[in-house]
Amino acid sequence: MTFSNFKNFFNPKFESFLKSLGIKDPAFLKMLLYTPLAGGKRLRAFIIYSLGKEMEISDQILLKIGFAVELFHSASLIHDDLPSIDNDNLRRGKESHHVKFGEANAILAGDYLMLLPIKIINSLHLNIEIISKIINLWITCCLNVVRGEYLDVKSDKKLDLNFLNDIYILKTAALFKFCFTVPFIINHEKNIEKVEKIGTDFGISFQILDDIKDEISTSDVLGKTPGKDKEQDKLTILKFISLQEAKKTSKEMYFNSLKQISNFGIKKTYNELKTIFDLVQKS
Amino acid sequence: MTFSNFKNFFNPKFESFLKSLGIKDPAFLKMLLYTPLAGGKRLRAFIIYSLGKEMEISDQILLKIGFAVELFHSASLIHDDLPSIDNDNLRRGKESHHVKFGEANAILAGDYLMLLPIKIINSLHLNIEIISKIINLWITCCLNVVRGEYLDVKSDKKLDLNFLNDIYILKTAALFKFCFTVPFIINHEKNIEKVEKIGTDFGISFQILDDIKDEISTSDVLGKTPGKDKEQDKLTILKFISLQEAKKTSKEMYFNSLKQISNFGIKKTYNELKTIFDLVQKS
Repeated sequence: MTFSNFKNFFNPKFESFLKSLGIKDPAFLKMLLYTPLAGGKRLRAFIIYSLGKEMEISDQILLKIGFAVELFHSASLIHDDLPSIDNDNLRRGKESHHVKFGEANAILAGDYLMLLPIKIINSLHLNIEIISKIINLWITCCLNVVRGEYLDVKSDKKLDLNFLNDIYILKTAALFKFCFTVPFIINHEKNIEKVEKIGTDFGISFQILDDIKDEISTSDVLGKTPGKDKEQDKLTILKFISLQEAKKTSKEMYFNSLKQISNFGIKKTYNELKTIFDLVQKS
Repeated sequence: MTFSNFKNFFNPKFESFLKSLGIKDPAFLKMLLYTPLAGGKRLRAFIIYSLGKEMEISDQILLKIGFAVELFHSASLIHDDLPSIDNDNLRRGKESHHVKFGEANAILAGDYLMLLPIKIINSLHLNIEIISKIINLWITCCLNVVRGEYLDVKSDKKLDLNFLNDIYILKTAALFKFCFTVPFIINHEKNIEKVEKIGTDFGISFQILDDIKDEISTSDVLGKTPGKDKEQDKLTILKFISLQEAKKTSKEMYFNSLKQISNFGIKKTYNELKTIFDLVQKS
């Protein structure tokens, strides 16, 4: 499966899965589905799916874990966009959740979508010890995402590269770490720490690319308001190095992390993620 | 253990547990601990502990599950108090979380405290199949709490007793259902549905008592702003029946649900919860 085909494969299954959860209240369901189904690259779900297929893990399992990740990611975006946090009215090319449904609903939809993945993961058709390991990694990553967000909105941030690195690792890389690692857990891989490091490095490179995009892109391409980091005087890598250097660093980190993945015998995903660098960089 | 002794037994253990979680950032930890340690009756944790002791479940397990419940409950209060939801500046006799730390932090502290219990439950020293069952019940109850909150803040609420009953069952009774049920799950009880029903009924009676308190109490006794339901034109049982009738209904439900618990051979907890009705009713 190529990355460019994945979205069309994933999205209808995601939608019908969400509609099959037995949430009967149509207004509530509409509000829950709005951001998860509003678009997005599905890169996180693709990584899980593509790696897992190379290990011959079933579609059903890989997709469900992908749903969990995309739901949590959407939840974190809904809360991130709130007026008291990032105050962004545009997300995935549409009105942000709180603009569409009001702040109270955005808070509660985020809460629900942060918790729902646990239900999905806990009911996977997998050995119960594997599920326990997945939940353990999952919840650690989710808590890190929230703590990263906390550091990111702190008003008294230090102009310190280590501090910025913590934000990158927690806020963005934690979920990528989960995506890279979870197929290996299911596949009984022993060297999990090594895979976790690959996912983290990939995630950091992704966040640097995101910072670069915020600086140079337009809202049509981004689907969210560009230039917000500068406007909000956000701590990003561009406070420390030039745009050119940031591009070089992120590219190196991206390709180095992928090279490590090929050492685990992962070839297709390695090639695909290499090929799509330009796409990830731009969209 | 009596209910009146429980708080002094539980609170120091709760505090040292939270401080032992390895959260190194002192500002972040302070913000997380504020509402959970601000007070509260600890009735939910007491129910778990008292029932579990009668089944000879270890203190360590019962307390940790109590911590999980109190953390989630605190998280839901932090989000509930936010300006866009209930807009309450007073909680447990102190400034609400967002008044003390700002809205962004209140949203993120709530997120973190909603997720943290999963980590605690998933690491309990229990048979892995029991943990899986507990997580399943836990996450269903948590999702119900959030959905109940959603129904409670809906602007276009119907003046309908069934609708109100749904709110009571979801928003308040779900967590009590968990508290009553979890010791029985650990104790391999087969008739779990019956225990769930007891917890739900107890929770509904508790919420009716809460509605009555909002109507007649003072902020000194409540530790939160009284009269808010009326001010916000909230849908409570008092829209349908008189104060006198509500008192009668809640008392009947409270004692009937407890009677059922005694049928499971639970004597001490039955007696203790019977004895403290006046306390629960007032404080």
